[in-house]
Amino acid sequence: MAEITIVGAGSARFSLDFIRDLCATPNLWGGSLTFMDIDRERLDLVERLARRYCRETGADYRISATTDRRLALEGAQYVVCAVKVGGFQPLEAERAIAEEHGYYRGIGDRVSDYYGGIGAYHQLAFFLELARDMQAICPQAWLIDTANPVFEGTTLLLRESRIKSVGICHGHLGYLRLAARLGLEPERLQAQVAGFNHCVWLTDFRYEGRDAYPLIDEWIEKRAEAWWASEEYLGASDPWLIEDVSPGAVDAYRLYGLYPVGDAVRSATPWWHHTDLETKRRWYGPQGGFDSEIAWPKYLQGSEALVARLRRYATDESLSLRKEIPPERGQEQHIPLIECLAADRPAQLELNIANRGAIPGIPDDVAVEIPALASGRGLQGLRLEALPPRLMNHVLLPRLARMEAILQAFRDHDRRSLVLLVAEDPRTRSFRQAGALVDALLGQPWNREADRHYR
Amino acid sequence: MAEITIVGAGSARFSLDFIRDLCATPNLWGGSLTFMDIDRERLDLVERLARRYCRETGADYRISATTDRRLALEGAQYVVCAVKVGGFQPLEAERAIAEEHGYYRGIGDRVSDYYGGIGAYHQLAFFLELARDMQAICPQAWLIDTANPVFEGTTLLLRESRIKSVGICHGHLGYLRLAARLGLEPERLQAQVAGFNHCVWLTDFRYEGRDAYPLIDEWIEKRAEAWWASEEYLGASDPWLIEDVSPGAVDAYRLYGLYPVGDAVRSATPWWHHTDLETKRRWYGPQGGFDSEIAWPKYLQGSEALVARLRRYATDESLSLRKEIPPERGQEQHIPLIECLAADRPAQLELNIANRGAIPGIPDDVAVEIPALASGRGLQGLRLEALPPRLMNHVLLPRLARMEAILQAFRDHDRRSLVLLVAEDPRTRSFRQAGALVDALLGQPWNREADRHYR
Repeated sequence: MAEITIVGAGSARFSLDFIRDLCATPNLWGGSLTFMDIDRERLDLVERLARRYCRETGADYRISATTDRRLALEGAQYVVCAVKVGGFQPLEAERAIAEEHGYYRGIGDRVSDYYGGIGAYHQLAFFLELARDMQAICPQAWLIDTANPVFEGTTLLLRESRIKSVGICHGHLGYLRLAARLGLEPERLQAQVAGFNHCVWLTDFRYEGRDAYPLIDEWIEKRAEAWWASEEYLGASDPWLIEDVSPGAVDAYRLYGLYPVGDAVRSATPWWHHTDLETKRRWYGPQGGFDSEIAWPKYLQGSEALVARLRRYATDESLSLRKEIPPERGQEQHIPLIECLAADRPAQLELNIANRGAIPGIPDDVAVEIPALASGRGLQGLRLEALPPRLMNHVLLPRLARMEAILQAFRDHDRRSLVLLVAEDPRTRSFRQAGALVDALLGQPWNREADRHYR
Repeated sequence: MAEITIVGAGSARFSLDFIRDLCATPNLWGGSLTFMDIDRERLDLVERLARRYCRETGADYRISATTDRRLALEGAQYVVCAVKVGGFQPLEAERAIAEEHGYYRGIGDRVSDYYGGIGAYHQLAFFLELARDMQAICPQAWLIDTANPVFEGTTLLLRESRIKSVGICHGHLGYLRLAARLGLEPERLQAQVAGFNHCVWLTDFRYEGRDAYPLIDEWIEKRAEAWWASEEYLGASDPWLIEDVSPGAVDAYRLYGLYPVGDAVRSATPWWHHTDLETKRRWYGPQGGFDSEIAWPKYLQGSEALVARLRRYATDESLSLRKEIPPERGQEQHIPLIECLAADRPAQLELNIANRGAIPGIPDDVAVEIPALASGRGLQGLRLEALPPRLMNHVLLPRLARMEAILQAFRDHDRRSLVLLVAEDPRTRSFRQAGALVDALLGQPWNREADRHYR
């Protein structure tokens, strides 16, 4: 009987997907699910909907909710972290400030910046706080982190905490959109994806047992241009659906030797794809990709609209929640992971865990996103072939150095290291410009604690 | 009796210093010295002067000269490589081309670029050729490389050749100029310097047994400003003498936590110190440092003037060469190294050798410049403390990635990797700009072989 706690359960989209997957997993029925959030109103909504969904699907879970984190950890075996400290508004404000200083769409490793903020301070501090509480209250529990920045956060946890921890992201599934475009059937496909979170690459791609990379090459050569000129591509309402098969993804494959997967298409592609909206449009489709000034606000609005829609279900008992959200397991790996660990049903998942030699040339104590076997025995990464050296030298090693710099700045309270990070951004024209931006960001009211931290 | 060969002996300044040190080392008398160069005229000059210097100093060496490299390697025990393939003119022409493309003073890691050229092709190819010949002709001999780029070259040799190799540079002695400015007496001083060639840092600095870093801090706080306003600083004829105690060196110390030494002051300081002459002047003195458009041409002219002066000695027997070059050992480490190895007289030197754990966090198969014990037993690096993490993350790891990219491009004939290197230069505004520069450089007549190599 798994005892699960979600910290940051007010993330409605996440929590509803979670309860749906849980209800569709009879193996775990009989366990408990505790929602924790500091937003009482959102927490109530999620709790209500979860109870109702269990009722409608006949799933058997003990459900509770609390705003007291320590209480939520009592008896927990699996603690899922979905926290975004402070929500998204501060980050959007920080992006606007960065733009005033000459940094289009903000600083950082694109995607991770949205979540981490300057130096990722709030998130990293929270991860450590949570791990400390777990050490005191439920030291045997797993910490399953799905909150960004996963790369920095998971690496920090594996270095600084004795708690068992693992990072989870759904970005690696991007290869399925590539496969669909190529006309390949998922059930005859095998793929392996590896790298760092938001910087993952298609290391192995086989169709009916044969290397399928030549099928990618053929598609690029013969069909890609037509696709990029098609109604479907040019009129795509959701950039998420076309990024994986955009000119930008193909160009990154050409430049680095492996096909980028999921979020990597945005956050691990070269800086010259991202200089302005026109350029982003050329590479990532008519909306300039998921993180452009066109698409990203739509995503944030979509999250709000979802919450508004869900509120109706909370008040109107005549509506069927089960109809809105069919009880079928989605593609998130949280429940499969818990099932593997709790019921000792071994399965291969894509996890962020300590490298320990899995990717040659990456230090052991760095969290890599790799295929791993999850079972009652724990997590065991698959040992991979070396990545192409061009990819290692031009993408992974520089990204590794930035992760190390972020963690070092955090650990050593080192404001100058944050300035150096910005100074090494390709848009920076002077050291003064970098320093001014860091001061401006840390000078915001919501960053008072971070400002004190980075002395 | 050491049998020594200098390949690239036409470098008159180098060869004359070498013969001076050799004549001042009676331990090695009775051995042989073979000069090799493809420039017959320069070779004759060096041979003549060397014979004459031996005569004048009474030193006993068998001296010979040849333009046949394989002949020069026969019987050699120590092969010193001082080769600059093609001389300096092509590199100056490449620098001018780079400036036309928007790259002030050229591309690359500043100093190493002067020597390596695009992708360091000619030098790296030569190192391997030399090592292959040695493998066939004198497989037991040491290859002592003093030709740039030492970081890339020494790393390449230790990975690709079974020949015993080591890199030597005099840059680490820059700490003596710092010590002199602080008023410290060299004989009461202990220093350790470590990093990569041209990217070395003062890891340990003690005066009369006590940590002397506080003396640096005190000098910066109380006396540096006055020094930078002094006649001696502002009127210095040779930027080499003041770089180590320039505002740029002090700023790098502040930014990264250790004091930069020698060539590191130029080639490992941040890019925003080097954007234009005015900026370079502010940081590195009135001439903008050794590698500015003011000082560097003077250095090249100085080399030519030296050769002209030496020619007079070759023809006018009435002049005393011994008076021009007093027979006292200079500060180069080539002869001390050979003496350690040949006469089994252990001594601590500063050498470029495989890391093998000496600097934590650097892979084993990377050449680091570190204090090492040289003796009849061979070379043994001293195991060092970890470098400050800010220095590791912002300077050493990025420099390591660039070295790896240069070697990968060379090994894989990978022109695109060269373009990516330029694309990641802070001056680059577009990928097209980077590609155009690489094409322009490889399109020069002297780069025809490199152009074919980088497909």
